[in-house]
Amino acid sequence: IAMGDKARLNDLLEPMHAADIADIIERLDPSRRRDFLELYAGEIDGEILSEIDEAIREQVLEQLPPEVLADAVREMDSDDVVDLVEDLDEEDREGILAALDDSDRAAVQQSLTYPEYSAGRLMQSEVVTAPEHWTVGEMIDFLRAEEWLPEQFYHVILVDPRRHPVGYVQLGRMLAAKRDALLGTLREDSFRTISAYAEEGDVAYAFNQYHLISAPVVDKDDRLVGVITIDDAMAVLDEEHEEDILLLAGVGEDSSITDSVTETLRRRIPWLMVNVCTAIVSSLVISIFETTITDFVALAVLMPIVASMGGNAGTQTLTVAVRALATKSLTTGNVWRVVRREAMVGLLNGLTFAVVMGVVAWFWFGGISLAGVIGMAMIVNLAIAALAGVLIPLTLDKLGADPALASGTFVMTMTDVVGFFTFLGLASMVLV
Amino acid sequence: IAMGDKARLNDLLEPMHAADIADIIERLDPSRRRDFLELYAGEIDGEILSEIDEAIREQVLEQLPPEVLADAVREMDSDDVVDLVEDLDEEDREGILAALDDSDRAAVQQSLTYPEYSAGRLMQSEVVTAPEHWTVGEMIDFLRAEEWLPEQFYHVILVDPRRHPVGYVQLGRMLAAKRDALLGTLREDSFRTISAYAEEGDVAYAFNQYHLISAPVVDKDDRLVGVITIDDAMAVLDEEHEEDILLLAGVGEDSSITDSVTETLRRRIPWLMVNVCTAIVSSLVISIFETTITDFVALAVLMPIVASMGGNAGTQTLTVAVRALATKSLTTGNVWRVVRREAMVGLLNGLTFAVVMGVVAWFWFGGISLAGVIGMAMIVNLAIAALAGVLIPLTLDKLGADPALASGTFVMTMTDVVGFFTFLGLASMVLV
Repeated sequence: IAMGDKARLNDLLEPMHAADIADIIERLDPSRRRDFLELYAGEIDGEILSEIDEAIREQVLEQLPPEVLADAVREMDSDDVVDLVEDLDEEDREGILAALDDSDRAAVQQSLTYPEYSAGRLMQSEVVTAPEHWTVGEMIDFLRAEEWLPEQFYHVILVDPRRHPVGYVQLGRMLAAKRDALLGTLREDSFRTISAYAEEGDVAYAFNQYHLISAPVVDKDDRLVGVITIDDAMAVLDEEHEEDILLLAGVGEDSSITDSVTETLRRRIPWLMVNVCTAIVSSLVISIFETTITDFVALAVLMPIVASMGGNAGTQTLTVAVRALATKSLTTGNVWRVVRREAMVGLLNGLTFAVVMGVVAWFWFGGISLAGVIGMAMIVNLAIAALAGVLIPLTLDKLGADPALASGTFVMTMTDVVGFFTFLGLASMVLV
Repeated sequence: IAMGDKARLNDLLEPMHAADIADIIERLDPSRRRDFLELYAGEIDGEILSEIDEAIREQVLEQLPPEVLADAVREMDSDDVVDLVEDLDEEDREGILAALDDSDRAAVQQSLTYPEYSAGRLMQSEVVTAPEHWTVGEMIDFLRAEEWLPEQFYHVILVDPRRHPVGYVQLGRMLAAKRDALLGTLREDSFRTISAYAEEGDVAYAFNQYHLISAPVVDKDDRLVGVITIDDAMAVLDEEHEEDILLLAGVGEDSSITDSVTETLRRRIPWLMVNVCTAIVSSLVISIFETTITDFVALAVLMPIVASMGGNAGTQTLTVAVRALATKSLTTGNVWRVVRREAMVGLLNGLTFAVVMGVVAWFWFGGISLAGVIGMAMIVNLAIAALAGVLIPLTLDKLGADPALASGTFVMTMTDVVGFFTFLGLASMVLV
């Protein structure tokens, strides 16, 4: 369809939501995307632009005529402009900011002074504030007179004369109150401000935990600098999850199905390289017992079962631990209880599968001592797997690293090495 | 602290948010939780109750005095009551519903007629509606006169005389408009209704995709039956992610760090049991080549590397594919492009690590033919890993199953079997 008929294309896309149009643009392959943009560039507005994934946004920006881009940027809220320009180089950034009027530009530049992934980058500077002593009537008159208002707002933030936020009022409560009611009397019981330096992951957590809809952002001196709304917090929550799940699987955090082959390789090969190295370590363990294996080839047959069970049990524990850290339900208060409990689970798992594999090995290869060896190896390996699964992410977290990062590889290496070592080591003592 | 001093405990918890108090209750171990509840039961309100995790809510409910429970339930929104009672047995449910007045009870019972995990269960029936032809002034007067209003609301839903929603108006826009403006003229451009039968995962997706704050829910006849707000959608998004990540790791979907040892075992052992079976299948493949291994023990040493690389590469592709399905960025439109691309990535990964492992094997064991064998095995296995990683979740999705479910085990089994078979099979042909 994107092969020539401009009017037809516009008709088709007209009823669609900006987010869906952005998805279509993302899903096209690069050369068709270029054709599409050539036809459609004139129609791209701020909404579509802010929905497009970062990975391909630069390509889109390059193809947009400057005046379309300027119009698009002018209608965007300041948080979306920040999101758009933060990854651009100095020159492109200046070009886009030049399209804004002075106060908007100042707001964006202010936001950019906060660290990446902070609340300051996420907030929009468009806020509706009022002093506590205003009445509902005064507030409504003010809003009616005000020419410019944020596209969406759900609360009025009450501030003191020095712009410190002191509470907020839901619009619903304001509408239901009499005109002479003081705003101060309508304020919500619970009120939380967010530091502009807070990490965006913690912001998303706070929104989800406390059911916030919007929250005022304050600078170092507790002065109001902006507001974060829940839709942005929800998007962050989504991204953080994505990151966790991709890191756990050993894929670069920004991986997406729309990456090109070379990008994909660039993201995945480093992790596979790490895995080759750790796999070689496990192989070195095996090579210590070469002669034992030559004598009892059944060991080579059963060996992968020990490793695979350890890896699986380790991954189970690891995932639960990483999630618990992310949702802050694993804290210093309960860490020892959790570790003890996981060790217990590991031991009981080990006993269960020691019996299972002992019986299997006995029937298969007929040796009671081989059955005993694999049983013992199962117990040791599953217990270690459980401990590694919880202690490794905890350690990474303590060191300030993302607990999901490379945990999987560490745990797998641990269980492989321990598994092979106990299984083959015991075998070399018992069977020979 | 929870050892006797009731007044002290109340003082301590007084300034805390309900969600934090709920977290404290969750983190206590069962016997201390009982002590805590004995002291604190009188203070537990609807807000705390709806924040407590389902897993332990039943225990809490049992310990609450009936009048405290009745008070708590009465102050809850209908969606929270539904969430509370849906997992209870008939008798307990009746007991709780009896505390509600007739119209609230009818709303909850209505909600319960919709399937589990549907929008109908998630919505609250408390909605603010108005006919299109009302003016802002009439609306404000109506709200001021109305005794009962939802605790939080951000939009007024416009309905026609037969209660079909036809649009909605943001409170902010209403406040900024003149008293004589018609509500119909203030309505938002984009307006989406959600079917009460829609799956909650799809609801969360729609909120995130279209930046909705609240959305009207309609029944089969398109009549308004309730409203879903973004904080509930955000909680669902969080749960769905949690489920994905836990299923990918082979842990039951409701697993949590607060489970007891027996619960944990009950959730994890079935998956490990599946893994034992698939691991035995891989071992059977190895056992075909027992004599080859006895002759060339280097094969036993290198074997786990082939399997581990295949497993890792498969997991990488799998995770990206599962996420893409969850975010609807993998669709019938681009599926073949994605599969082709993954196959390409698999092949190039295979070539890269064929060279790496070929060189390693050559230096380690000195045989050029062994190097060739492991190289070939790498290429085949990584290509298969890539294909399995994308085709298995796609197949599960086509069959209507959750693509995250057990995909990991399938992919691992596939790569183990293929890896061992090509590596040992080639070795038996080339080396002997």
